[in-house]
Amino acid sequence: MKQEKIFRTPDLEGLPRLYRNNLINSLSGFKSANLLGTADQQGNANLAVFNSVVHFGSNPPLLGFVTRPNVVPRHTYENIKSVKYFTINHIHTSFSRAAHQTSAKYEKQVDEFDLCGFNKYYSDLHAAPYVKESKIKIGLKFESEYLIKENATILVLGRIVEVLIDEKLIGKDGFVDLQEANTATISGLDAYLSTEKIARYSYVRSIQDIEEIK
Amino acid sequence: MKQEKIFRTPDLEGLPRLYRNNLINSLSGFKSANLLGTADQQGNANLAVFNSVVHFGSNPPLLGFVTRPNVVPRHTYENIKSVKYFTINHIHTSFSRAAHQTSAKYEKQVDEFDLCGFNKYYSDLHAAPYVKESKIKIGLKFESEYLIKENATILVLGRIVEVLIDEKLIGKDGFVDLQEANTATISGLDAYLSTEKIARYSYVRSIQDIEEIK
Repeated sequence: MKQEKIFRTPDLEGLPRLYRNNLINSLSGFKSANLLGTADQQGNANLAVFNSVVHFGSNPPLLGFVTRPNVVPRHTYENIKSVKYFTINHIHTSFSRAAHQTSAKYEKQVDEFDLCGFNKYYSDLHAAPYVKESKIKIGLKFESEYLIKENATILVLGRIVEVLIDEKLIGKDGFVDLQEANTATISGLDAYLSTEKIARYSYVRSIQDIEEIK
Repeated sequence: MKQEKIFRTPDLEGLPRLYRNNLINSLSGFKSANLLGTADQQGNANLAVFNSVVHFGSNPPLLGFVTRPNVVPRHTYENIKSVKYFTINHIHTSFSRAAHQTSAKYEKQVDEFDLCGFNKYYSDLHAAPYVKESKIKIGLKFESEYLIKENATILVLGRIVEVLIDEKLIGKDGFVDLQEANTATISGLDAYLSTEKIARYSYVRSIQDIEEIK
């Protein structure tokens, strides 16, 4: 018989810190795997892995991510506030290990592109560096930020101003095949996974309406 | 040679609505796949699929999701504001089709549990229904909401007050094996995928520090 473990608030509060971090970070489900590229006013590049990029809207096209700027210096956040542009670059399964290396606490002058083995690509639209190796590159302009008062994290919203994408990944209806792109997904703090498609389901209007999109 | 498609702001604004929705919804990367369970003051249950659940913090344990309450009636949001509790239940690959059916626009009196073939489970802690079939069930108390002024979406934050989880999925360090659980991930608006583990990487302190966790 299946054993179900129950954690309530006092149980969660009593857990060792690392155990709690791993457990709670697993609960939301699978996460997006992206490298955020920024530069400071002098053009010094920064690259950092984020697992919290989330869709906020298609029109205007908005993506958000969560950061914790008050705990340790967060070069990504500082650069975005200073230069106003940043890039989001998909992490593919072939370079998940190198991408995760950007999570180390490097000095501000360290260029994680060089250190972790990525090449920069610049468009003529803005000063933030893209990851050349990424098949899905998104350029964003800083839009706004929301302070999450419960724990002093910040939700940063960016407006998409540029998308650079391998043409063969885009379907007739605009759907991008992330499995074909070998984009990775993250579980918890440090697990990287590949994906295998089950199905696409059509837009559901009523219970009779659902069907698989071939 | 690889052909790269470039979309800039005027291109994005000129796209047909469905194409743009599919494209922009693909860009954030893989998404979490969850069923949110709520009840109104009379105990009428509601169940709805969400792909925007995201981790906001481990201590206090906070999860958030994005909703659009002003466009059409959103029973999930109304119930959470009224009853103050809700559940998040992982969607497993075996029932992704049934889970997606909850996205149809049903009348408020419709019980999506019954209609889509899920059983309810209640704990004695709060009145929101869990999905019995889900191996990872999370009970949350409404914590706060943040209005996203750019598009009138709302970020709803809940504090985890209860976790019900199949014991064999939890590792010694608290990591929950979502692949073993067959939790699904979502791409775009309507694609469901299974996952295959690549690696877990240890906490990275410096460039020499990275190693795979066996």
